[in-house]
Amino acid sequence: MEIELNDLIADLQSLNQSLPDPSLRDAFHKIQSRVEHIADLVRAEPVRRSKVKDMSAEVVDSNPYSRLMALQRMGIVENYERIRNFSIAIVGVGGVGSVAAEMLTRCGIGRLLLYDYDKVELANMNRLFFRPDQAGMTKTDAAVQTLSDINPDVVLESYTLNITTVDGFETFMSSLKNKSFSPDKQGNGVDLVLSCVDNYEARMAVNQACNELSQTWFESGVSEDAVSGHIQLLIPGETACFACAPPLVVASGIDERTLKREGVCAASLPTTMGVIAGLLVQNTLKFLLGFGQVSPYLGYNSLKDFFPTMQMKPNPQCSNAACVKRQGEYILAKPARDAAAKAKLEAEGPSIEEGPLHDDNEWNISVLDDCEPADGTNTKSSDALPEGLTHELPTADEFQNPVTPEAPINDNDDLDELRRQLEAINSV
Amino acid sequence: MEIELNDLIADLQSLNQSLPDPSLRDAFHKIQSRVEHIADLVRAEPVRRSKVKDMSAEVVDSNPYSRLMALQRMGIVENYERIRNFSIAIVGVGGVGSVAAEMLTRCGIGRLLLYDYDKVELANMNRLFFRPDQAGMTKTDAAVQTLSDINPDVVLESYTLNITTVDGFETFMSSLKNKSFSPDKQGNGVDLVLSCVDNYEARMAVNQACNELSQTWFESGVSEDAVSGHIQLLIPGETACFACAPPLVVASGIDERTLKREGVCAASLPTTMGVIAGLLVQNTLKFLLGFGQVSPYLGYNSLKDFFPTMQMKPNPQCSNAACVKRQGEYILAKPARDAAAKAKLEAEGPSIEEGPLHDDNEWNISVLDDCEPADGTNTKSSDALPEGLTHELPTADEFQNPVTPEAPINDNDDLDELRRQLEAINSV
Repeated sequence: MEIELNDLIADLQSLNQSLPDPSLRDAFHKIQSRVEHIADLVRAEPVRRSKVKDMSAEVVDSNPYSRLMALQRMGIVENYERIRNFSIAIVGVGGVGSVAAEMLTRCGIGRLLLYDYDKVELANMNRLFFRPDQAGMTKTDAAVQTLSDINPDVVLESYTLNITTVDGFETFMSSLKNKSFSPDKQGNGVDLVLSCVDNYEARMAVNQACNELSQTWFESGVSEDAVSGHIQLLIPGETACFACAPPLVVASGIDERTLKREGVCAASLPTTMGVIAGLLVQNTLKFLLGFGQVSPYLGYNSLKDFFPTMQMKPNPQCSNAACVKRQGEYILAKPARDAAAKAKLEAEGPSIEEGPLHDDNEWNISVLDDCEPADGTNTKSSDALPEGLTHELPTADEFQNPVTPEAPINDNDDLDELRRQLEAINSV
Repeated sequence: MEIELNDLIADLQSLNQSLPDPSLRDAFHKIQSRVEHIADLVRAEPVRRSKVKDMSAEVVDSNPYSRLMALQRMGIVENYERIRNFSIAIVGVGGVGSVAAEMLTRCGIGRLLLYDYDKVELANMNRLFFRPDQAGMTKTDAAVQTLSDINPDVVLESYTLNITTVDGFETFMSSLKNKSFSPDKQGNGVDLVLSCVDNYEARMAVNQACNELSQTWFESGVSEDAVSGHIQLLIPGETACFACAPPLVVASGIDERTLKREGVCAASLPTTMGVIAGLLVQNTLKFLLGFGQVSPYLGYNSLKDFFPTMQMKPNPQCSNAACVKRQGEYILAKPARDAAAKAKLEAEGPSIEEGPLHDDNEWNISVLDDCEPADGTNTKSSDALPEGLTHELPTADEFQNPVTPEAPINDNDDLDELRRQLEAINSV
């Protein structure tokens, strides 16, 4: 609009010079000053903050990263600024995906790839992020609009497509492989995929892509009664894939379009979705920046404020061929993994620091995994998880060692047994 | 700006009529059409959605409440629309308070009272809610701007004041007592107070006000290393007040201004604060609408994804006189409470429905507290809590019955013992 106003002002000036009558000029001056006033109003509209070259820890009101860089001084993160090197793909920009994208944007993530084919509707306003004035826009366009205003430092790529179509899946695959953001990197063009979709078909598409690319990803979901949800880490070959043993806790399993056609709709709450997005991105930050323990599976039952955890080994008879291939590679790489772990343990030597990390450490927690490898792989923290995390299950005594850590499930009976145990956990 | 443009168009029309030269008129028409084009651009700017008289469960894209009203059909909430009758006071509109306000606004809460004296800064952009273009505005003004755009149905009251000053505290107290929103209601003018402040002094002010008014409130906080937080329900006379036994887990205890002056700052993350806001508002919804179990205390340790729960009885030797007075009233009312509980139990008769509430009930959860009294009190669910919730603690075996439900702490030794147990829980 500023361009249009500048053109108008120029026109007025040239017209003014050709006015013969002084009384006309007076009336004309009035019009000119009106236009100048409108131009001032337009120029006074909020401007976006400028880009920041380096993340500074300086404590001034104008520094958008001071509270994040403080994580280093607090002893939580070794090198926060590394976050600018990472690319995250978010599939599904709905109640969970949009909030996850906003959190990562505010944390100063390097690059976000957003995938969705849906449009914003007023019916989405009971969840965080989208605004009523964005109704009718595609979710990807609306998200880019909001996120680029919040943090212009983040590189945003938006893909308005359905990953369950042949073309959509192909574009999805090639976008994950594109290494233009950090060309020196090994592996794929993204560091992590976050699945925030609301149906089985889309989850299976993400699973297929990640198995083929050997790409680590997080699955997330919220129940159709809106009061529970989960996140799950999937490392091809190392953990169960979505086809090995689909979690019993999935978002709904019913396509939203079907629901709408039939005049019914699933319930949703900004609270449950906000909590799931928060747990998802917190585990993403732990995974990327190498602090704390990444949860292999974390549930949220909001009626009881109960948070079950567990882990699932891959199924050697999985129907997904790419998964079976990744399992084979993982087994073959075991001697190398063991040797690396042994070398690392020896290099670290015996632990000296036994006390809490700093005085204000309210839980007396020490950071266990602060030496994550720089390439984004995360085998160590995942291996270290089961022991500490299964303790949280209140019914843990009922089934000691449901799956022995090194013994993968090897027939359908074992899978049925796992399902039974999952049901037992969920029915607590 | 639309008014200014309409005035300009009128001026142009009157000037046009007095133009003598046809060639001047042509140039003038060009200017008129430019102005019309700018006016079109301005009119196309986003408009706010109109108010909605009744909450409808109709499944159409244009219904902002369809996914919330679906909670009734799903068997979670008996009467969702009751949410429009409730008033919530949010003290502190920072990283937790602003998100809590947005969640309640999107849920269609009746009235929100917002208290803060601080201004939005770019240094706040690492948390959700505020936008860079709001830097320099008071947090209350910026919140009202955003929240009224999101949901014009919510009545917003903003108080730009510091509740720890004499004048501020007085205004805070009188605003909590103001019953103009629902004049037929007993008790105070608000149904719940959410404390989302970041310092000890402000928490003590909220505690004082709520003890004096016998007002139930939730306390919340995030640690200064940004990786843990908690929420706590405080019912004057029934549970420990903030002065009885200040939680060991508090946000920081250091005034933010002091931190800034010394050139250091506490760390913060949108994830931890989003999760705490989500848990806080989810428990607020459970409290108001009578579903699920309200947690008396819920911690979040994000490094381990560990969520400790506990409860604290009031200290009869509490230094807060209003707390001791409320404790006396609570003890005196015990026979009446017991009789009411017995009558309710008899009226309900034996439970018939043993199976899960509906087929898609992923956790096999049945709603325990769906017959909450309509006046917003919540004694039943709070009484029912301890048994179920302490099961979640992994070290529960180590200290069976840390505090016997009906035996309040009666000397300082017991308080020290409680602190010791708390430390044991937190060090897990």
